[in-house]
Amino acid sequence: MGKKTGKQTYQFGNPPIILSTGTVAGPFEGLGPLHEDFDEILTDPRNNEKTFEQAERSMLTKACQLALDHASCSTAEVDLFLAGDLLNQIISANFTAITLGIPFLGLYGACSTAALGLGLGAMLLDGGFAGTVLAATSSHNSTAERQYRYPTEYGGQRRPYQQWTVTGAGAALLGYNGAGPKVTAVTFGKVIDLGSTDPLNMGAAMAPAAADTIFQHFQDTGWDPNAFDLIVTGDLGKIGLDLCRGELAENGLTLGENFNDCGVMIYDLKKQDVHAGASGCAASALVTYGHLYKKFQKKELQHLLLVGTGALHSTTSFQQGENIPCVAHAVRIEA
Amino acid sequence: MGKKTGKQTYQFGNPPIILSTGTVAGPFEGLGPLHEDFDEILTDPRNNEKTFEQAERSMLTKACQLALDHASCSTAEVDLFLAGDLLNQIISANFTAITLGIPFLGLYGACSTAALGLGLGAMLLDGGFAGTVLAATSSHNSTAERQYRYPTEYGGQRRPYQQWTVTGAGAALLGYNGAGPKVTAVTFGKVIDLGSTDPLNMGAAMAPAAADTIFQHFQDTGWDPNAFDLIVTGDLGKIGLDLCRGELAENGLTLGENFNDCGVMIYDLKKQDVHAGASGCAASALVTYGHLYKKFQKKELQHLLLVGTGALHSTTSFQQGENIPCVAHAVRIEA
Repeated sequence: MGKKTGKQTYQFGNPPIILSTGTVAGPFEGLGPLHEDFDEILTDPRNNEKTFEQAERSMLTKACQLALDHASCSTAEVDLFLAGDLLNQIISANFTAITLGIPFLGLYGACSTAALGLGLGAMLLDGGFAGTVLAATSSHNSTAERQYRYPTEYGGQRRPYQQWTVTGAGAALLGYNGAGPKVTAVTFGKVIDLGSTDPLNMGAAMAPAAADTIFQHFQDTGWDPNAFDLIVTGDLGKIGLDLCRGELAENGLTLGENFNDCGVMIYDLKKQDVHAGASGCAASALVTYGHLYKKFQKKELQHLLLVGTGALHSTTSFQQGENIPCVAHAVRIEA
Repeated sequence: MGKKTGKQTYQFGNPPIILSTGTVAGPFEGLGPLHEDFDEILTDPRNNEKTFEQAERSMLTKACQLALDHASCSTAEVDLFLAGDLLNQIISANFTAITLGIPFLGLYGACSTAALGLGLGAMLLDGGFAGTVLAATSSHNSTAERQYRYPTEYGGQRRPYQQWTVTGAGAALLGYNGAGPKVTAVTFGKVIDLGSTDPLNMGAAMAPAAADTIFQHFQDTGWDPNAFDLIVTGDLGKIGLDLCRGELAENGLTLGENFNDCGVMIYDLKKQDVHAGASGCAASALVTYGHLYKKFQKKELQHLLLVGTGALHSTTSFQQGENIPCVAHAVRIEA
């Protein structure tokens, strides 16, 4: 059984293992530098479905099935399915839960969902209740952009600080019967509002929440940031990453070359026209469950801090003139 | 430490106590038969706020503060805040989390959120991590009806089988330092789709999910349904309650007079023109954290099974011709 350490961090006594992962990437993500690390890459963003929403849930379902297959695990052997996504009422997760038939806990953490599900799932396992938990999330450029901003068919000009919503899905199977990197700690974040109001500038909005959780994680654990091979935020993009780095430095925590962002890593920012980088639940899910999980398997990674970041506004709250509330959750993963 | 019992149920070894609750009801709910059991009743459905959305979150924040006050607990003493609501991106919960400043796990279970938060919070406490967890939810007639159906100002005629979304909020503080009823078990439900497509007929859509979880709870625990003073579904309304009762009887589980529904109990169905009863996250939250919690305090209730019910569709999924996925989570509460 684990214990609470400091104010917001839980360290596990019996750290759960990430037994397997499953990843499905969109066609555009398949052109990026991490394409070799994804299990499947779609050739059609609609994935032969009638709607983009159906395409998104088909990716999520497939990512879950891949994770289960990679661990030779059936749905009947999984105790709980923890999932969420960006769409109103998390319909991608809800419909995937019908197909899987596993008891379902719906989560909403916007783009922090991968870290939220991984951390919460690990806590439930370490608590001794469940033997196996499946945590998953997805996003789709055409469903998210239409819901939050403009339909992609409209072809509106994008601002230089905007990020590109990732099309993809990722799933992780957590348990004890097998080998793999372990989830050893989680820091759940507070919701931060520093007055950001521009829903096109997500990186700037989320940076203070990321800095708050990262700072708290090191306060709580007393770890040296250099002990990590990689500290990676979810989807701050290059503008948000710089802001976060600066804010941490102002508070006396100077992070070095081992600090990066999944939204910066997943695309080739020089060749792919995504402006400030990637966003969306699938940004951190694809990078963590695809690229970084393979690095653990190849023994190129020993200590990872994944800091999922989420902007918790809605179109209604924005249209009513409200600020953008943001959150970040940090999960420590070790070989 | 608790253990898994049967397929979907977790029984707690060190059952957490519901230390206190907080409830805020809307004006119309204040005219119902349970009005004496709510801590506060609004005189204005907008609660002196600019928007109905702000009114909803003001109720949620107040319910949380009342629960904390009733236990003489400060926000700094609470480890985790688990909350969700019906609005897109659960903005009521997100904005409340800013005010509270407690590390936040966002949940989405539609109207099952009270049971989801209570069950998950209890699991995290029994797992030995947290000392105190605050679980809360809200709904507002004017925010939910506008988002899901028609703006209330439109004054559309309602169908006889429709339910009335409750305006209100409820919070429960879970921990070990105090007295009160205990959460002794939880059964997390699967997402069920039996082909229901009418978003105006929520009771009929959710009844199969409620029946599935209730049936599984008794299969898993071996308890006699008559051991409960009350088995209460979240918001099936009178049509859904009858359907659920019938479906359970067909499967050999005949429930008696001790089977009821929060959506039937919260209004006077003869005098208040709500048609089939109540719906909304606050239906089960107000009845459980207001009325039933007071019954526990008065020793009029010993064994309660709360079965939160949720319809997991969105307006997009409905408009795209999809069925309505539903879920139910059951929480056993004992004196």
